[in-house]
Parts: sequence; C-alpha cells; structure tokens
Amino acid sequence: MKNFKIGVCQMKVKDNKSHNLKRAEEMIREAHANGSDLVVLPEMFNTPYLNECFVKYAEELLESKTVRALSTLAKELRIYLVGGSIPEKEKDKIFNTSFVFNDKGEIIGRHRKIHLFDIDVKDKVTFKESDTLSRGNDVTVINTPYCKIGIAICYDMRFPELMRLMVLKGAQVIVVPAQFNWTTGPAHWESLIKVRSLDNQVYFVAAAPALNEALGFHAYGHSMIASPWGDKMIGLDEKEGIIYGDINLDYVEQVRNELPLLKHRRLDLYDVIER
Amino acid sequence: MKNFKIGVCQMKVKDNKSHNLKRAEEMIREAHANGSDLVVLPEMFNTPYLNECFVKYAEELLESKTVRALSTLAKELRIYLVGGSIPEKEKDKIFNTSFVFNDKGEIIGRHRKIHLFDIDVKDKVTFKESDTLSRGNDVTVINTPYCKIGIAICYDMRFPELMRLMVLKGAQVIVVPAQFNWTTGPAHWESLIKVRSLDNQVYFVAAAPALNEALGFHAYGHSMIASPWGDKMIGLDEKEGIIYGDINLDYVEQVRNELPLLKHRRLDLYDVIER
Repeated sequence: MKNFKIGVCQMKVKDNKSHNLKRAEEMIREAHANGSDLVVLPEMFNTPYLNECFVKYAEELLESKTVRALSTLAKELRIYLVGGSIPEKEKDKIFNTSFVFNDKGEIIGRHRKIHLFDIDVKDKVTFKESDTLSRGNDVTVINTPYCKIGIAICYDMRFPELMRLMVLKGAQVIVVPAQFNWTTGPAHWESLIKVRSLDNQVYFVAAAPALNEALGFHAYGHSMIASPWGDKMIGLDEKEGIIYGDINLDYVEQVRNELPLLKHRRLDLYDVIER
Repeated sequence: MKNFKIGVCQMKVKDNKSHNLKRAEEMIREAHANGSDLVVLPEMFNTPYLNECFVKYAEELLESKTVRALSTLAKELRIYLVGGSIPEKEKDKIFNTSFVFNDKGEIIGRHRKIHLFDIDVKDKVTFKESDTLSRGNDVTVINTPYCKIGIAICYDMRFPELMRLMVLKGAQVIVVPAQFNWTTGPAHWESLIKVRSLDNQVYFVAAAPALNEALGFHAYGHSMIASPWGDKMIGLDEKEGIIYGDINLDYVEQVRNELPLLKHRRLDLYDVIER
C-alpha cells in the first residue's frame, strides 16, 4: 500500500477509431510525463456514444486493436491504466467493457457495465443501451500495489449497493469511466460523485469524454476527483484536458476513523449482500 | 394517496423547555395557518443538543409534557405532525426519539435514532451521543392517508442502506429531523439531501433547528426539501423560519418511470436486506 498519482484524460472522442486511439495515446503519454502512476480514460473512448456505433466499433478481445494499443502503452510507460471502456464483442453479444492493465501491459481487470442506461426523460434525453448491449454480471475490484480499486461504468455509479459492495471488498479508490448528458449532468453529476466518495470514504475518480458537438450524443464532460471526505479535489468543464489527483491512503484511514461511517453501519439490522 | 403540503419549522432552541414548547407551538400554528397538512419539527427541539441536557430534559412517554402538547396540537389543528425528536427515557435508557402524530393526536409512529453520532474530527468537531443515549433498533415507515413516509434522525441519513430499506418498504417521502454542525454542514448537508432524494426517488425533508450561538452546540440550520429528481426545492440559511413544500405523488411516479433507478437495481447480483 502506497500513495500514488492518478491522471484522468478527458479526451474529445470523434467518429473515427484511429483518431481516437491516437488521441488517447497522446493524452496517456502526457499524463505519464506529468507523473501519473495510474491513468484513466473515459467511457466509450474509442467510439461515439451511439448504439449504431457500438455495433460498428465493437472488437473481440483477442483481436482488439484498442486493447493491444493500451497494453503496449502501459508496458512501455510502466503505468497502470484503466482503459475507459469500449464496445467489446463476445460471440453474439456486445458489452460496455473496461479493461485494466498493469505496468507490464497485462490485463488485470475487466468490468462489463452491470446496469445498462435505459432512460426516457420526456423532452430531455432518451437512450436505450440495451438495444445493442448486454449486461455484465460481476462486481469488479482490482488489486494493485497501491491499493484495491473498484471499477464501475457510468450508470453503475447510480446504484449505492454496488458502490458499497466494492468498498466492502476493500476498495479505497473507485474509478468510473462515464459520460453523463446535459440533462442529468448539471442536475446530478457533481453531487453524486461527492456523496459516493463521502458515503464510502474513498477517493472517487470519474473520467468523462469532452463535449464534441459534432456527435449525436453530447457528453457533459466535467471529469472530477473527490476525496474520502466528499469534497471536490479537482474538476474540468466540458473541454478537453487532463486532471491529476494525489491519492493519500493515510487520509482514507484518517477519515474512516474520524467519521466512522463504515464502522457505524448497523449490521445487526441490515446489510448489503452479494448474491 | 393524495398530494399534500409539508411545513418545516426551523426553530431556535433555547436552554429552557417551556420556552421551546411554546415556540414550537407558535411555529406549528403558523405552518398550519399557511396550509400545511403535515408539520415537521427539528431534532432535539425541546432541549439543547448536549449530552448533559439529554439527561436533564429526558421524559418518559406516559408522563411526557412534550408528547402531550404535540398530541393536543395535532388534534386541535387536524394535522399530521412529525414531532422532531426529544430525549425519551425508558427505564434506565434514554433514546433520541421522534414521535409522529395523526390528525386525531394519536401516536402513529415512533423512531428511535438507530445510528448514534459518535465522531471525532480533529480540531473541528467531537461529539459522543453514546455517552448518554441508547440506540433504536427499528426501521420506521409510517402510514398516512397521503403516502408512506420514512422517518429517520440526523446521523441515520448517512447510511444509504437505511434510506433504501425505507423506500423498499414503500416510502415516497423521507422526513429527517436533524442537526448538522458547522464542519459537516457546509461540507456534506446539501449534497447528502440531494443524493438521498435522487437515489431513492423520494421527496426528502430535512428539518434542523436554527443556529443559537448562546448554546454549546452550534446547529448548522439549513432545513431543506429536495425533490425525487434530486434538486433542492427550497431551503433556509441558519436563521429561524418555516419552509413549505408541495408533495406531488404523481411526480414521484413520473421520475421513477423516466429514470427507472429502482427498477434497474440488479437484484440477481445484490440486495439490501433487513435482518
């Protein structure tokens, strides 16, 4: 267990996979040059966030150009890398999947989005991921030399049960590639990130793509890191950029002792269980 | 099930029980005169928020001057009344208890604070309720002609499991008499209220006492009502006052359909259980 630095790349995704992979590489290199031990990309960073693109851009793991590129880069730069997410094909299914790489370029984690984003807010925003995507079935907490890190994707973060389960499995940091929209973003994004970190006494790292008005889905951006005390450490607006956060694991312990929420849970009355 | 109006009395508590009961009555009468169907008082509204006062001000239910006064008033005004909370004595124990009255003055709910506030944030705020208080053991959801209402007290609201359980038991409104302080208040209060309402798609009503600088514990005030969409409908600063909120149960259903968080829970993977 040791302290480390996270770099969050809020990249502007375009409707061009080669461009997206190149831009991701540039930003990862920059984040590494600025001292990041772990770098995070946004949700669906290699494709526009549209059902038709999920189908078109999907890759099978063993033949994935995206996974190969990220693995190579993690190994070269000797960094840990949460590869945002990509449409991952397996047989006749497509998942919204985050691959996580260690500093040897090995895949050490794979999270498939558990909760699909099927919402229909009248006259505001409608999206139905389940038109093309299938659901993952696993809670994902990865081991790193720094600490345990919980991985979830976007809409997953709306479910307090999942967040809690990751913490009960030892997560001290939760990393969430995500992209909210301009209805739910202004209304919910920042409060959710703060309260997820606060309730669970973890660093909460949310990585979103930058807004690209040329695309059909307008990402809210606003990548952000919150501390275990629930305060916003740093955040972006909707434009492209990288933010950095120093993860202090002693501070996690300090907060958990001073405001002992995790210890004060009334397990004689209730619990969150995994099936 | 029908729509109704809630009035939240942010009263200034003093170190004088008779004064506090008189002031509560005045504010309840005002809230009723302004059309409230349900009126809410703050946590420990009849006593300063101090362990020594909890002992001194404690009352046994059957002899409680406070309960009698609230019951009489609810009956006279034909209102539902969440009587904030008071130090309730039973045998050798004292609880932080909220009594709820119907419009006939009958007690229809009793919530004893489940999670005691024992925190020690270095150089900021230290409090140990468990020095004098005992813990309640029941999740409290009351039936009213309007809807089911979950009742919790202050620190209880920091536990997402409890909030969820109340909603799974049918609550469409959660009412929380509370008092944060000037460390946790500015840092956590508003975000927590917003996200509790958002996650659970309920109206969330938080009733705090006004700041009284003459007392040993400085209440943060800031009573607030949030909608099922997670937005702040109305709120106060730290001064005395009453806020009102119109509870629209159709809107609860609308939000639960448009952003179907409660339906999207992955019960095949996890659940919150009551022991």
